[in-house]
Amino acid sequence: MSIPNAFYAQSGGVTSVINASACGVIETARKHKRRIGKVYAGRNGILGALTEELIDTSSESAAVIRGLKSTPSGAFGSCRYKLRSIEQNEREYRRLIDVFRAHNIGYFFYNGGGDSQDTAHKVSQISRTLDYPITCIGIPKTVDNDLPFTDTCPGFGSVAKYVAISTREASLDVASMAETSTKVFILEVMGRHAGWIAAAGALAQRKKGDAPHLLLLPEVPFRRTDFLERVKQTVQHKGYCVIVASEGLAYPGGMFVSAGDPEGKALSMSAGKDAFGHSQLGGVAPVLAAMIKRKLGYKNHWAVADYLQRSARHVASATDVEQAYAVGKAAVDFALAGKNAVMTTIVRHSDAPYRWSVGEVPLARVANVERRMPKAYISTDGYGITAQARRYLLPLIAGEDHPQYDAGLPVYVDLNKRIIAKKLKAFRI
Amino acid sequence: MSIPNAFYAQSGGVTSVINASACGVIETARKHKRRIGKVYAGRNGILGALTEELIDTSSESAAVIRGLKSTPSGAFGSCRYKLRSIEQNEREYRRLIDVFRAHNIGYFFYNGGGDSQDTAHKVSQISRTLDYPITCIGIPKTVDNDLPFTDTCPGFGSVAKYVAISTREASLDVASMAETSTKVFILEVMGRHAGWIAAAGALAQRKKGDAPHLLLLPEVPFRRTDFLERVKQTVQHKGYCVIVASEGLAYPGGMFVSAGDPEGKALSMSAGKDAFGHSQLGGVAPVLAAMIKRKLGYKNHWAVADYLQRSARHVASATDVEQAYAVGKAAVDFALAGKNAVMTTIVRHSDAPYRWSVGEVPLARVANVERRMPKAYISTDGYGITAQARRYLLPLIAGEDHPQYDAGLPVYVDLNKRIIAKKLKAFRI
Repeated sequence: MSIPNAFYAQSGGVTSVINASACGVIETARKHKRRIGKVYAGRNGILGALTEELIDTSSESAAVIRGLKSTPSGAFGSCRYKLRSIEQNEREYRRLIDVFRAHNIGYFFYNGGGDSQDTAHKVSQISRTLDYPITCIGIPKTVDNDLPFTDTCPGFGSVAKYVAISTREASLDVASMAETSTKVFILEVMGRHAGWIAAAGALAQRKKGDAPHLLLLPEVPFRRTDFLERVKQTVQHKGYCVIVASEGLAYPGGMFVSAGDPEGKALSMSAGKDAFGHSQLGGVAPVLAAMIKRKLGYKNHWAVADYLQRSARHVASATDVEQAYAVGKAAVDFALAGKNAVMTTIVRHSDAPYRWSVGEVPLARVANVERRMPKAYISTDGYGITAQARRYLLPLIAGEDHPQYDAGLPVYVDLNKRIIAKKLKAFRI
Repeated sequence: MSIPNAFYAQSGGVTSVINASACGVIETARKHKRRIGKVYAGRNGILGALTEELIDTSSESAAVIRGLKSTPSGAFGSCRYKLRSIEQNEREYRRLIDVFRAHNIGYFFYNGGGDSQDTAHKVSQISRTLDYPITCIGIPKTVDNDLPFTDTCPGFGSVAKYVAISTREASLDVASMAETSTKVFILEVMGRHAGWIAAAGALAQRKKGDAPHLLLLPEVPFRRTDFLERVKQTVQHKGYCVIVASEGLAYPGGMFVSAGDPEGKALSMSAGKDAFGHSQLGGVAPVLAAMIKRKLGYKNHWAVADYLQRSARHVASATDVEQAYAVGKAAVDFALAGKNAVMTTIVRHSDAPYRWSVGEVPLARVANVERRMPKAYISTDGYGITAQARRYLLPLIAGEDHPQYDAGLPVYVDLNKRIIAKKLKAFRI
């Protein structure tokens, strides 16, 4: 058999639409059976290639593959695993080549964020340095929207929509309770280094002064006294205050706010760590809630959206789903057109109406570059976004793509995930 | 004018469908203009009656009133305010009568949970004890599902659907990350005394052994060692563990788990309070997360749904919306039929197909009775629900009632909320 097979894998934190990219890859490959044999999906990302755990997607029905388009999370399993350089760990690259050769793999499609594009880039170098011909295409994915050279990252639009809607809904709730009960509500959202997701909370506003009243972005150092004063003013003027806070919010010195309040009890036990001893898990909302309660006395409520926000396929953005599918489809189209070592991208042609197409950028330029929010997107007081940011964000949450429901729940597909027979010895990672 | 007006108000924690009940009341009253004049809505519940802040719903268009059916939260404002008995505070009742008389109010519709039905009951006693004729009908509402004599409380079905869907979505996320990253996910949901909401998380399961693997209910005392052992076993057998925890989870001695882990650092500072000094705000998820991290070492993630769960109209249960409307409509129908001092209820006739109708129960029997989950609904190990519970819960989340969307966001209505001219002197609460 000289028709080469393809390897596809999902990497990094998953999203509600990364499977739509998988759907785009597999459906497109199936249309070109003379040029692409089977699509093997790596079980748990690149690990599946190293361990030779390859899922034969050809054993899945067309209906199930179609169902991926409306199923959240990584259907084939994802991983947090970054390949070192060829110089540092040639053994792993040799193993990849062994697996690729054993299964006649000529295409490598890797679906992930910055670290994952770095992996795709390194694999693309195999052709040159280790003399194994393989076509590598990166497919962008990340809720953080922090990949460069693409208008947006598939996955982000749906989180943005979730956060905008949740913020509007919770704001209505607080507004109705504020007279005799809760006066402050804090929603904690993802975003370690970039405030894109928190910024989307502002889309809940319909006019100036609407909730959310304060965004807390990682790009803007947190000034406690000023913040508390603004909360107080907002409650006095509006009756209540709604805050959307990035998990990565930090003090001017760089310490995460989730690590605790320097004046509060929480931090007094163990400076630099939160009260529970694990700083990786968010928790900026409860710290802010305690600060507000102690200093201002307002009854408050807080929510931490965590995984709910990035898996909420039930409220995905139709634009996002479409783009996720398109970057997967284009990866195959580009590979067949002879392109190599590029990542597919979204190119914006206009804001309103939103017009976009799929483009490309060399993987070498993408790897390990993080895109933060431009300063021009953040309001001068630091607690909101500008009209320019709103123009950028609005089209990304446009459109609904409701999944089908059965017995009250969305229908999400289950795959067979049939692993093909191994041909090689086991490999120790 | 001898045609009496009606007073309607919303009370207690709001839900995503309480406005559907308001819609049912107002639309039905508008069909009987010869018998009901205007519907005045209390601004912030019973407070609006005491302060004479009455919103004239007749100034709202039919389209806006219809829009209430798909708008979450309490459109007229809610309150947490419980009337004392007539003996204890006759002054307030005298005031209510002054306001009712000044505005020719002959019907009192009160929409809320246990405390609110108690208020409705007390108001209903005015007719007898203070000789002011008024027809009082209670309309059930509470996400907690803890009102007696009704098959379910409007508001609960939509929270249940939100929790079931969110649990399924987040479980798919964890499943795809577990190999190299997050192994445990904890979702904290509402429920101080009753585990109805957490129980709904189990609806995410499609077959035995599916996530969520452990429910933590307030009805079942929390046994730390046993819990940790089960988490460990689940991770060993399934690769990951998903937990849905009620905010009201408590140790055998009655101490809330959210108050901290007796063996952890969090509690060592201030026994009986959480690390942040406010125990009213939930926080069982971070305590459990810290416990698991410390004792088992598993990387975990946690979410606290808080207000998001009870305001998530975007994913409301169609059954719940329909029932919320029906109990509002029936309140007016019952009043016009000469009934008095009753609460409208949902009566179940069969599970599958789910058949129900609207019934009634005397307010005197409802007030201050809390319905917990029956023991027969909780699995023998205490970490799940029985088939009987599933039969009860499933119909409540059935059906979708997607709101309309505009520019990516649900269309929720804004009312004029025109307050009618006051006729009385100010009243100090």
